[in-house]
Formats: sequence, C-alpha cells, structure tokens
Amino acid sequence: MSATPSTGNIVIAIDAMGGDHGPAEIVPALASVLAQRPDVRFLVFGHKDAIAGPLARHPALVSAVTVIHTEKTIESDEKPSAALRASKGTSMRMALEAVEEGQAMAAVSAGNTGALMALARIVYKTLPGIHRPAIASVMPGIKGETIMLDLGANVLVDAETLVQFAVLGAAFAQKQKKIQTPTVGLLNVGSEEIKGPEHIRAAAEILKRIEFPGTYYGFVEGDDIMKGTVDVIVADGYAGNIALKTAEGVGQLVKHYFTESFNSPLAKVGALIAYGSLKKFKRRMDPRLYNGGVFLGLNGLCVKSHGGADALAFSQAVLLAVRLARYGYIQQVIEDINNVVRQETFLNPESSE
Amino acid sequence: MSATPSTGNIVIAIDAMGGDHGPAEIVPALASVLAQRPDVRFLVFGHKDAIAGPLARHPALVSAVTVIHTEKTIESDEKPSAALRASKGTSMRMALEAVEEGQAMAAVSAGNTGALMALARIVYKTLPGIHRPAIASVMPGIKGETIMLDLGANVLVDAETLVQFAVLGAAFAQKQKKIQTPTVGLLNVGSEEIKGPEHIRAAAEILKRIEFPGTYYGFVEGDDIMKGTVDVIVADGYAGNIALKTAEGVGQLVKHYFTESFNSPLAKVGALIAYGSLKKFKRRMDPRLYNGGVFLGLNGLCVKSHGGADALAFSQAVLLAVRLARYGYIQQVIEDINNVVRQETFLNPESSE
Repeated sequence: MSATPSTGNIVIAIDAMGGDHGPAEIVPALASVLAQRPDVRFLVFGHKDAIAGPLARHPALVSAVTVIHTEKTIESDEKPSAALRASKGTSMRMALEAVEEGQAMAAVSAGNTGALMALARIVYKTLPGIHRPAIASVMPGIKGETIMLDLGANVLVDAETLVQFAVLGAAFAQKQKKIQTPTVGLLNVGSEEIKGPEHIRAAAEILKRIEFPGTYYGFVEGDDIMKGTVDVIVADGYAGNIALKTAEGVGQLVKHYFTESFNSPLAKVGALIAYGSLKKFKRRMDPRLYNGGVFLGLNGLCVKSHGGADALAFSQAVLLAVRLARYGYIQQVIEDINNVVRQETFLNPESSE
Repeated sequence: MSATPSTGNIVIAIDAMGGDHGPAEIVPALASVLAQRPDVRFLVFGHKDAIAGPLARHPALVSAVTVIHTEKTIESDEKPSAALRASKGTSMRMALEAVEEGQAMAAVSAGNTGALMALARIVYKTLPGIHRPAIASVMPGIKGETIMLDLGANVLVDAETLVQFAVLGAAFAQKQKKIQTPTVGLLNVGSEEIKGPEHIRAAAEILKRIEFPGTYYGFVEGDDIMKGTVDVIVADGYAGNIALKTAEGVGQLVKHYFTESFNSPLAKVGALIAYGSLKKFKRRMDPRLYNGGVFLGLNGLCVKSHGGADALAFSQAVLLAVRLARYGYIQQVIEDINNVVRQETFLNPESSE
C-alpha cells in the first residue's frame, strides 16, 4: 500500500471494479460522500488505469483516496464457487481483507452478491454466537423507515437463527435510527398467534421470553413493511427476498404506469406546472435512495450495493457503511448476542450446528 | 326458496351480509354486473330488510335477483372454528350450499376469510386428486396479467401440493386469459436451479418431467409478478401471502407519497390540466380492479372479495366468478388433475395424506 490515510478518520474500503458501471459511477459517488462527510477516507481497490480518469475529474477527492492497484476482477456472472477459487488479488477480496487487517472500517462493493457473501464469510468469519449471516436493508415507509432482514443470504432457517436475526436487526436499528429499544416484528401471514409456519411461531415464543436489545412487537404482515409499523422486521431469507423483490417490482410497475399515463401534450403542460411536486414525488419513490444491503453477523462490515447502481445510489451504500462503522455496530452485536446466549443456552452455536 | 331464476342464465350466489359495508355496496355492485352481463342472475342471501332499501334504488336489478332471507350472519372477527359451529342458516353458508345443491354456479362473499375457506371446504369438499385448496388472484403487470396462487390458504406445503397448484393455476389461466398453454413459474429467491428451499426445487423437478396443461417456465422472483413474465406464478401460501401483502403495502405507500407531494396550489393547477392523465394513472393503480381471490381445488366455485370492498371492487369479484363459472373451470381441473395423477402416482392423495 503506497500511503495510509490519516488517523482519526473513518476509512472505507471500496471495490471499484464491481457493478455494471465500475469506477465511472463509483468515483463520483465517493466525491459526493466526501462532500457530505469530510472526515471519510477511501481505500479504493481496482485497476489504476480505470480509476485514474474519473479521479482526475474530481480533484477534491484526490487527497481523500488511496488507490490500490489490482489486476483481477470478479465478474458479476461468475459462480460464487468459481469466483472464490480465483479470488486472491481481486479488488473485491482485497477490499474485504483491508477491513480484516484493520486498515478500513467497512467495505462496499457493487459486485457479484454470491461471491461477495462467500468471500465476506471467509475473510471476516461469522461472529461468535451467530449461526448464519443475514442481509439487511433500510426500507421506506409511511410512518418511517424499517430495517428488514434477512433479504436473501439464507432461505428457510430455524427459530434460533431468526432470534439471532432479531438481535442483529435491533442493534442495526439502534445505530441507524438512533433509538434505544427498537420494536421488532416477525414477518408472517397474519397477526394472530396461531398463524404461520412452525419456525416463525417458535421464534415468536423465544422472543417473547428473552431480553434482547429491542421490544418484541409480534407478527407483522407484508404491508407492515411500508407502513413502518415496527423499527425492525425479521424474516427468513426466503420470505424476505420475495418481499423485497415484490416491492421492487411494484415500484417498477408504478413507474411504467406513470410514464404511460402522462404522455399527452396536455399532461406535459400539467407536469411542467406541477414540476416541484412531481419532482418531490419522484424523489420519494426513488429506489436509489435506499440502495445498500448490509451483511450482518460477520466479524467485519460489508455493504452490498445494487449492481446497476449509479453514483447517487452507490453513494447511499457508502453512507450506510460510514454510519454503521462510526457507531460501532459490531461491538454492539457482540455484547447483545453474548447477553442473549447467556439467557438461552440453545442459542449457542456449539449446541445446534 | 321463493323463486328460482330462469334457466340458461349464469346464476351467482351472493353473501349480502359479508364485508364492512353489506348490502349498501353489494347491491349496487350487482346492478353494475348486470349492466355488463345481462345474462347473469343472482341468489342474494341476507336479511331481507337490509337488502330491500338498496334494491329499491336499483329497479333494473329486481327481476334478476332472488332474495333468500337469512337471520344469521358470520361476523368478520369471529374465529373460524367458532363461526363454523354456528354456521347453519348464515348468509355465507347458505350461499355456498346453493352452489353445492346446483342452484347457483359460484358463490361470492366479502366475509370472514378463514370462516369462508373452512365452510367452503366442508360444503364443497376438495376435488379428487387435490391435497389442499389454494387461493388465487389476478395480478396486474407490465406485460400483462398474472394469475398467482396460493395467496394464503396454506403456509409451507410439499412439492406435490405445489405441482397441484400449478395445474389449478394453469386451468384458471386458460379460462381467464383465454390461452391454450399458459406459462407457469415457481416463485423463488433466484432463477438458478440450485437456489431456494427444498420444496420449491423438488416441485421444479416434477414440473419439468410431467405433462400438465401449462408450460413450465422455471423459477421466477418477486419482481416477475409485476413484470408479467409468466401467465401463472405458483407459490406456497407463506411466500404468496407475503408477496401479495407487500405489493398492497407498496401501493398504499405510493398513494401516500402522491397525496403528500401534490399538495401545493401550483400542483393542484397542474393536476387539473393533466386531469385526464392523472385519472388514467389512478385508475391503473386502483387495487379495486383486481379484487377477488378464488378458492381453487374445491368441488365448487367461491370468490372471496376484500372485506372493505365498495361497489366497484365487489363487482370485480362477481365478474371473476361469472367468468370461471361460464367457462367450466372445475370440469377442466378434474380432467387435468386426473391426467397428472395418471403420470405420477405419488401425486395421488391416497398415497401421500
């Protein structure tokens, strides 16, 4: 490494080669983050020739960035197993290793999700007391934002793993939403206690009984995600991923309907007059503002950006990483999980995996 | 029964007491259906005094309606088990019995979903060869409508049950979308064959191998529901219900954002000028046009309307019942299931339940 950023700053490791656009969108995203958070420094991993051009167009960024040249890149369509075998020296792996070695506080990548999760598990390792990592994200809602997990790191999981997700999510909400005791709901098909599959009902029984860093609210349904009924929604990765993708699909359908409906000359005049409101509506509907899935339960922070992210979207993923790094998310989780494991011995990984 | 409607017509049994609004919205809904489909006749079950007022305001409807007075109603918040015990003589049960006795071709109710499903199973019975009934609905999409099931009659189910849902859904799509070989996808967390929970992957293996009245497309994800990627999406009731409710929640969030954004005087002027387009957009976003969940796999047709349905929404549920009744959905399913059972003996309910 040619230079280390000055101490006292928050240092984020960036995989500059991941995603559809690479440094062309990622470098401007970093410039935007720096403008909002002048205390952030970046270790940028990628091919120096690909980074040089975009970086030259953002002179203010130069002093906040250390470029670490990498020859190899993991492709977005590579199978995780194949990507893993040839991962040494790739921009993705080196970004994670920088966190593991203490040079950076979090890594951000828009690359291959499966490969990133597999590598993060290998490089960071799972936190003591946690069975499986999960992916969490911030979702917009009528009453406020909701942290939701797991969005697809797993499929169906057992009740104990869901309880661990509740702890991971509650600690996330404490840092992200700055609230002491976030409310936590379990995603289910109805709010009555008798409803839903066995693993969800069993998780509810445990959450009612234990002390954990949130308040157990009960079952919530799909529409509660966007109502903002609770601060944290816990789901297995099967239900969570389907809910997330369905929400994305409805967003796309609305956009399609909107474009198709407002196509007459009169509509365009009306839209021009209502320009401010229309812009406000579009901004609130903009999925880029919610870009960033955080891998939780690992002994290191990693935020996965959407592969198609542009500069605005990627900057949101980086800001999420900055927030979690700054407020000591991992230390919090280690404490919380230890506390829960002490109460419930069967939540200890030794006894169940 | 005081009078039977004339033969040659499509007769629909209506539970006039179900839902939040009862006859006040249900009777105008029937008038609207009759205006579009003059060959439809209604057996309307409910308290004659509650029905008389709304009916007097729709004189054109009188000759198409036979009112069957009932004293008892199942409340929307009753537990299905309790509702079942006291169901004799209720408007909901009598509507179903009218179908079972051959007086009507389908029943429509906006009442208590759990009680309606429990009663429909008792009164109609499950079709031979079908393990469990499912709830299906028509979903809007960019490329066209998608039939989706199960939306919550079950939670997690086995692979054979998912295959039966595929047959039920394909037959529905043949009648609803008027296509000979509908494409059928399995809702999952990714499109690759190795992805997802065991029951979904096992169902895929069977669907690849058997002949059934659709073409197996492969796995689809949550956003494919609104893209219209396939004609039919098959899910267990756990994932299907969560997807449906999430979609409803996003719809409500969009409406909320829209109302909040267009609140300035200038926005109102713009909205007035773009009135036609705005109306078109709102109409396409209107969930009432997709009201109606069909109980599939039973030896009788029943459509569940949303409890909060107004006249427009309820009329859509009735029109759905009319379409399925008219095109002989149940006869089709019996043939299709027999054909599949002949190919795969383990799909026979005797061997697996």
